[in-house]
Amino acid sequence: MIDIETKKNITSNWFVYLQNQISEQFEYLEKKISSQKPKKFRRRIWSKKNKEEGGGTSLLLENGNIFDKVGINISKVSGTFDSPFKNKILGAEKDGKYWASGISIVAHMKNPKIPAIHFNTRYIVTSKEWFGGGIDLTPCLNDKKESIFFHSKLRNICRNNKKNYKKYKKWCDDYFYLPHRQELRGIGGIFFDYETKNWEGNFKFVRDLGHGFTELASEIILRKSKIKWNTKDKDKQLIKRGRYVEFNLLYDRGTKFGLNSGGNVQSILMSLPPKAKWK
Amino acid sequence: MIDIETKKNITSNWFVYLQNQISEQFEYLEKKISSQKPKKFRRRIWSKKNKEEGGGTSLLLENGNIFDKVGINISKVSGTFDSPFKNKILGAEKDGKYWASGISIVAHMKNPKIPAIHFNTRYIVTSKEWFGGGIDLTPCLNDKKESIFFHSKLRNICRNNKKNYKKYKKWCDDYFYLPHRQELRGIGGIFFDYETKNWEGNFKFVRDLGHGFTELASEIILRKSKIKWNTKDKDKQLIKRGRYVEFNLLYDRGTKFGLNSGGNVQSILMSLPPKAKWK
Repeated sequence: MIDIETKKNITSNWFVYLQNQISEQFEYLEKKISSQKPKKFRRRIWSKKNKEEGGGTSLLLENGNIFDKVGINISKVSGTFDSPFKNKILGAEKDGKYWASGISIVAHMKNPKIPAIHFNTRYIVTSKEWFGGGIDLTPCLNDKKESIFFHSKLRNICRNNKKNYKKYKKWCDDYFYLPHRQELRGIGGIFFDYETKNWEGNFKFVRDLGHGFTELASEIILRKSKIKWNTKDKDKQLIKRGRYVEFNLLYDRGTKFGLNSGGNVQSILMSLPPKAKWK
Repeated sequence: MIDIETKKNITSNWFVYLQNQISEQFEYLEKKISSQKPKKFRRRIWSKKNKEEGGGTSLLLENGNIFDKVGINISKVSGTFDSPFKNKILGAEKDGKYWASGISIVAHMKNPKIPAIHFNTRYIVTSKEWFGGGIDLTPCLNDKKESIFFHSKLRNICRNNKKNYKKYKKWCDDYFYLPHRQELRGIGGIFFDYETKNWEGNFKFVRDLGHGFTELASEIILRKSKIKWNTKDKDKQLIKRGRYVEFNLLYDRGTKFGLNSGGNVQSILMSLPPKAKWK
């Protein structure tokens, strides 16, 4: 069995690799889809106030041919949680200490017919250690074919890794729900957390999800990148994005976690859409 | 001394009067400022699930000559708070019972040179009874002259009512603050709560604030309604509105209170701007 420091090194390096890999793929798509000068990711490196507690790298591409805004964030941080918060973190109840690394992606599309895509995987170490993450879609227009394609792809990845797809799917629906509107944020996907047993198996699952995300996102984008849309579609998208903002600011655990624990605000709020509307 | 039911009647009728008065003034301004067909408020009446627990009236004007979006909400509600929440409400710790009436206004302007204006006053009865409220401005461009005018007007209203202006001003700055950005939401104003002593004096202060708001808003709007603006100004406004959304969804007590206590979602979230931007 490998030791915990090796696990930390391997996982955090995986997230670095995945960030590069996905950003290259997205830049490739930007170029493929239009003859206009393609946009590139801008890279921003940040560290926590106490630099020994780590930091992260944020990639942001705006006003692209495909993406209105897409952020790809990775981080590797450690520290000690304060007293009220530490009781909410598995295994941190006693001394509050944590180490965490992960990747988080939110893609808001220019074309309202292409859904917003969210992807995240993370590895967290306290007195326990576990993986968590998920993938979900937020379309603003119904597309049954796309929905079936998306969910079946995720089901396959779960099945290949002996993961409980049904449980993860339900978890996603339960999580991405706006109680005040009695609405789901999107069409769901999978969400999982506290995967403490079988590090090798879980890490393989997380890697498969990373590759799966790249493929899924590319297929979803390429299927529809040439489809025409009008201002009415755009308006629907901006309203849907308002819901996205409501969810992230009112309920999202990652956002609250980040804002309350000295994370990089610009990177945390990169998930917010470039523009949103309320009626 | 008048009894509590009389106090409830008088205050809630005041809010009805004030809603009419302000909406008429705003419609007058919409007409005065442009020869284009002026927009009118749309009225929506809602009640709580249990109709005996009251409800409210929302007025909304959108895409006007002056206002991108302005909502004027009044409500008169009662009920019983559940156990975790009731401890947060003064005087509701024992039986959780409350009665509340108030008016709340948020005006998002078309012209980015005119600040967004927020106004609210309320009368709440539990085992205690008190007034609360405030007025504050959110400009997206500096205007020292306007700021001095605004604050001095509020200082005068406070002084005429023997209220501690300095305390109320500081309270406002402390309240409308975004810790994650280390930014004030706007240029402040006044904010007060838990005014339990001297009902007559407090109610007069609340009435003076109502009239003061109408005058203030009218003067601020008329001073600048003809000033030209460009897309760069509008962009600044949309970014500033993003901060407004962040504040209201992450921190605002009224929003959280409303969403967690079965209030009318459409009315509660009327405070959100018609459009916002994030970089």
